[in-house]
Amino acid sequence: MNEIRVFSPATVANLSCGFDILGACLDKVGDEIVVRKKRERGIVITKVTGQKLTKDININVAGVSASALLKETDVNCGFEIEIHKGVKPGSGIGSSAASAAGSVFAINQLIGKPYSNKELIKFAMEGEKVACGSLIADNVAAALLGGFTFVRDGSAYDYFKLSTPSELVFTIIHPQIEVRTKDSRAILKKDISLKQMTEQSANIGSFIAGLYTEDYELIGRSIKDNVIEPLRSKLIPKFNELQKTSLSNGALGCGISGSGPSVFALSKGFSTANNIALSMKEIYDKIDIEFDIHVSPINDIGIKIIEIK
Amino acid sequence: MNEIRVFSPATVANLSCGFDILGACLDKVGDEIVVRKKRERGIVITKVTGQKLTKDININVAGVSASALLKETDVNCGFEIEIHKGVKPGSGIGSSAASAAGSVFAINQLIGKPYSNKELIKFAMEGEKVACGSLIADNVAAALLGGFTFVRDGSAYDYFKLSTPSELVFTIIHPQIEVRTKDSRAILKKDISLKQMTEQSANIGSFIAGLYTEDYELIGRSIKDNVIEPLRSKLIPKFNELQKTSLSNGALGCGISGSGPSVFALSKGFSTANNIALSMKEIYDKIDIEFDIHVSPINDIGIKIIEIK
Repeated sequence: MNEIRVFSPATVANLSCGFDILGACLDKVGDEIVVRKKRERGIVITKVTGQKLTKDININVAGVSASALLKETDVNCGFEIEIHKGVKPGSGIGSSAASAAGSVFAINQLIGKPYSNKELIKFAMEGEKVACGSLIADNVAAALLGGFTFVRDGSAYDYFKLSTPSELVFTIIHPQIEVRTKDSRAILKKDISLKQMTEQSANIGSFIAGLYTEDYELIGRSIKDNVIEPLRSKLIPKFNELQKTSLSNGALGCGISGSGPSVFALSKGFSTANNIALSMKEIYDKIDIEFDIHVSPINDIGIKIIEIK
Repeated sequence: MNEIRVFSPATVANLSCGFDILGACLDKVGDEIVVRKKRERGIVITKVTGQKLTKDININVAGVSASALLKETDVNCGFEIEIHKGVKPGSGIGSSAASAAGSVFAINQLIGKPYSNKELIKFAMEGEKVACGSLIADNVAAALLGGFTFVRDGSAYDYFKLSTPSELVFTIIHPQIEVRTKDSRAILKKDISLKQMTEQSANIGSFIAGLYTEDYELIGRSIKDNVIEPLRSKLIPKFNELQKTSLSNGALGCGISGSGPSVFALSKGFSTANNIALSMKEIYDKIDIEFDIHVSPINDIGIKIIEIK
């Protein structure tokens, strides 16, 4: 095996109740990463399509995560990386995570899989550190493990996959304004009330119980956020209208994807998710901001191999 | 059916990671409540043994919760209540909850079970309000539903039973000093950091995932509390030593039961739980405070009927 092409999915982090700890993996929306062995050791990014991104391996997240992997691994060759961006940077659906996770997944395949996907997360987190300023695992864990994922303690590499009810479908609207993760972190308050903590704990606990018991109503009731959403939603045009129309069209819940500006709605079944997509489109058609809308089931596998040569 | 005697169990609330929302039901430790029909309408508390408690039905939690039930229910008789306390008030293992839940459970049986145990929680919460100053459901939910229970939103009556791994065993030490719930609430800080919230959310989420997947190690790693425990543990003699000996003797986790002063250790299996009981005893034998120690599996049923006449 000299070359591999993988699909590395977009991901939804936070999901209202799980700030910095909860993630979910999407299908169809994502980057394609091609990695090819080369004789000379080291990493080279040979091509980037879809977005304008640096090929400098010390700044490009795919290069950083790949370098982190090679630093710990005895390999007698090098790798060329092509990045075909399907996820726009600053979208809030794990653009940097898709590239960071995709590159280490692909290299791992080419060198005979010395690492499990779970073990690859720590390398991908190094890429995220460059993009977000801190070692955040929520998006990369979702991309590498698939389904819903949870981070108990990122710095201790304590993350795992949750149960994924099969009928859940995401509707995602991505307003084409850039909200940088660093900026949307700066808007947060450092202190919150004990009451807010209890409510947030109650919702994340219930959400997870809902996943394991396939209690869709409970999942919906738990998609609440009285801590982050009131602050970050101000950066998202028409957020309240998007939330209102999603819920009135049958969404289980609706909130900010990651640090925004993408907004997610979670529904039971495609029919509801598609109706919500239409109702979101209606709101954004009236304003002068470009947008993408994606409807996607949960991708329970994570990164997928497209081609091996 | 004119008379019923029930065992109403003690309960452990909070369990470190679930402040005000998580509860667990104990076995063997608890109150016995006898309820007898009488011709005249209304509630009378005829006997209290084991502890000195008022028989005034407007102050005694069993009277308050029973009155709340009768207020909503069309019944053409009254009830005499006997309370035989096995749980000491102010112990931190749900003394008031045991009496509040036991009385409504018993009355419900005598009137043909118009309410589910889940529906009875709201009446029992009225008793808790008298004892704790607020409508807290964590202990009464655990007593009435059994197993591990979760409160998403007490004021919306949104609570449910979680999965209960069969091998979990509690060791509880109750130092015979009274810590009133109201006082141990007053010691808490009103504001916490966002980082603390994220850690607490991460631990409650992981704890619940651990319950559903029977991942005992994960359950153990999640019994952490950097918010409440550092403040409340100051009220508990030798707390740090109790925690240290529990963990070094194989406890999955150890923390404050409810608002204290009881301290719980959670273990996999009786052998470990019994060893921890001995090691806790050793620490308390050296100081001049009386104490009880209980070793109990999780009671997955909740309140149990002892006798019907």
